[in-house]
Amino acid sequence: MLIEILCTGDEILTGKTVNTNYSYMATRLSDLGLSVHWGTTVGDDRDALLLAFRQAAERADAVIVNGGLGPTVDDLSQEVAAEAAGCELVLHEEWLKRMEEFFLKRARTMPPNNRKQAMLPATAEFIDNPIGTACGFAVTIGKARFFFTPGVPREMRKMLDEQIIPRLLAQSGMRNAFRLKRFHSFGVGESRADEILKGIEDLVPGGGVKLGFQAHYPELETKLIVRGTDDADVARKLAPLEAKVRRNLGNFILAEDDATLEKVINDALVARDGSLSTAEMFTSGGIASRMASMPDAERLFRRGVVARALGELREAVGLPVNGGANAITPDTAVEVARALRERSRASHALGVLIDLDEGTDRVDFGGTICIGIVGPDSVSLRQTRLIGGHEWVRLGAAELGLDCLRRHLLGLPVEERIDFEKR
Amino acid sequence: MLIEILCTGDEILTGKTVNTNYSYMATRLSDLGLSVHWGTTVGDDRDALLLAFRQAAERADAVIVNGGLGPTVDDLSQEVAAEAAGCELVLHEEWLKRMEEFFLKRARTMPPNNRKQAMLPATAEFIDNPIGTACGFAVTIGKARFFFTPGVPREMRKMLDEQIIPRLLAQSGMRNAFRLKRFHSFGVGESRADEILKGIEDLVPGGGVKLGFQAHYPELETKLIVRGTDDADVARKLAPLEAKVRRNLGNFILAEDDATLEKVINDALVARDGSLSTAEMFTSGGIASRMASMPDAERLFRRGVVARALGELREAVGLPVNGGANAITPDTAVEVARALRERSRASHALGVLIDLDEGTDRVDFGGTICIGIVGPDSVSLRQTRLIGGHEWVRLGAAELGLDCLRRHLLGLPVEERIDFEKR
Repeated sequence: MLIEILCTGDEILTGKTVNTNYSYMATRLSDLGLSVHWGTTVGDDRDALLLAFRQAAERADAVIVNGGLGPTVDDLSQEVAAEAAGCELVLHEEWLKRMEEFFLKRARTMPPNNRKQAMLPATAEFIDNPIGTACGFAVTIGKARFFFTPGVPREMRKMLDEQIIPRLLAQSGMRNAFRLKRFHSFGVGESRADEILKGIEDLVPGGGVKLGFQAHYPELETKLIVRGTDDADVARKLAPLEAKVRRNLGNFILAEDDATLEKVINDALVARDGSLSTAEMFTSGGIASRMASMPDAERLFRRGVVARALGELREAVGLPVNGGANAITPDTAVEVARALRERSRASHALGVLIDLDEGTDRVDFGGTICIGIVGPDSVSLRQTRLIGGHEWVRLGAAELGLDCLRRHLLGLPVEERIDFEKR
Repeated sequence: MLIEILCTGDEILTGKTVNTNYSYMATRLSDLGLSVHWGTTVGDDRDALLLAFRQAAERADAVIVNGGLGPTVDDLSQEVAAEAAGCELVLHEEWLKRMEEFFLKRARTMPPNNRKQAMLPATAEFIDNPIGTACGFAVTIGKARFFFTPGVPREMRKMLDEQIIPRLLAQSGMRNAFRLKRFHSFGVGESRADEILKGIEDLVPGGGVKLGFQAHYPELETKLIVRGTDDADVARKLAPLEAKVRRNLGNFILAEDDATLEKVINDALVARDGSLSTAEMFTSGGIASRMASMPDAERLFRRGVVARALGELREAVGLPVNGGANAITPDTAVEVARALRERSRASHALGVLIDLDEGTDRVDFGGTICIGIVGPDSVSLRQTRLIGGHEWVRLGAAELGLDCLRRHLLGLPVEERIDFEKR
């Protein structure tokens, strides 16, 4: 089945807004094996829209249109859809009533403009939008089924998942239930993960399983997409796959699905009624800002100290500057973490020190990273070297520091070789 | 003149990579009044590419194609371009030689695959790529002139500016020299800036001037696009416009062109051989990380302290916690900055304290922000209130803190009402 995505709106066409709706929709569909073969962008222009609808109607079996369902005069999707489908616009009474209630609940009167949002092509199938005033609809133009979705990202996402994807799966004759399971890891590169998990699809006889990866350094996302006849079938298929990924990626898995590394650390600290302080050098607040922005940070996050020079960092946690003996070592990292922990009365302290290479930024620019973690009754330390330019080292060091903290808190080995390190 | 952008590649089509090349190209062209009326995305697929070229050739006067010029078998742009243009591929001897030299300079032998990159349609006009192995070219298909550009962003950007845009301006009959002048400001909203600068185009009789805005909170970018017969003509036109923007946006201008707020602070500190320490609460390292990542940070940035609670922050800079007397006020911010400055022996210290509203995040969630700056011989303070949810307040507070520091360092009034504040 050939699927197209057609995005409308001057903001997108002129590049003022980066088209993240497109990449979200295309990824979501590709993940499910519903492959997108064409993307079109046009502005709020009647002629261009009509031509785009007609050309897509000749090429594709299904077209998802995004945007142009708003209340203003430059929102043209319903009107041009009706013209392309060769029918009139008619008032959808039920949606008009829903909109009036929507405004009433917010103690406002519906502006007359919004009535336009309840005008749908006469042949359209109504598609619900439980969280906004732009309802969706489906209509057939030429040989293709067109699905119209709102431009507001959270409304589009909900409608895509709950309304459009089931219709596309049905239209394509694919099994209807599906699940996307995600694992976030750090330390295993995409090609090694691919190697480690090779053949995983064969665990489920009869198919309906797809493995995929998305690298966003320093993390790797491993995706399992499972389709089945119903939710029970999907769950039955997913179980052995999940088990295998957990076994093979092991301690490198930071978090699953919508969870994050910070969230896992946050929860581990909350569980033991703990608290955290951090000391960092070249990561320049990158560690503190990830932890201090967590919802529980008010309780958990005690103190963050940032300095570019080790002497300055030592002083900031109350240690003597020590003259020339200021080497960046794992022991120094522990010393800094211990002093900070005592000063700030945190249950745990993390110190991430970096000894950077000399000279300007370049692709083989690197740094030696020393990590020290001090908790109420144990200490962890780690040393490694990362290469790949300033930004690469900065991001890698912050991730490594937090990952070591996660491992320390969860009782996992802090020292486990990662693919990025050189030693 | 109708211009289209046609992006190729499976990574873009499937959404794995967000299409920032599209938004860059479209913005750049729109800024110059070369408006883009259609965007297409197709994968590395011969049939889809050929159809996309043919359909674009019927709609447009000029088409910029991005991607598909690499050395591997799935890079199909030259081949399909030749087919659509109805001619053969021929070897471009000069480019082959340039590529061989390119590899030689890097002490490598050119892999045989790369020869493919020197195969161009027989009727093509060669377009130089001084920084990569994918040369560009132009060819006429149907009624449109097609320009082929590499997918690597920095190569595409250079080729667009230096090679494609002058050709498009010539094709459209527009004057050939142009300049994009940018001002970054904080504190003036887009609609007020529009009001303040209304009619600025009229300062230049004969036209060729366009004013534009791009808001990326908390900053606003004001763009002047000037076209003329040659560089001298452009400079002559630009001078009174620049002067008017500087006069009307005044102290709200943070930086111009590629400079940033951090850079301006960095340079002002370097100029006086100064140094900086920062103390922050809810901005959670957002201020430290912006300053500590500057190129001169090794010398300039002394110490950053982050805490979510005022008591903790006071202690971290060596102040007594003070029991219940810990109100967040501008005086407290100055007290914290003064203590931090002394402790870290920095020439300047910035303290940004935030008293957040109670309860969960919501659109009318706000915070009271107190800023204190202590330098060698003067003190500045500022208090305000921002509303708009956690992230809005966090970003606004970090920007306001740095902007007050800029104003302090440059001798400008630190207290000047901004459009975002409520008081």
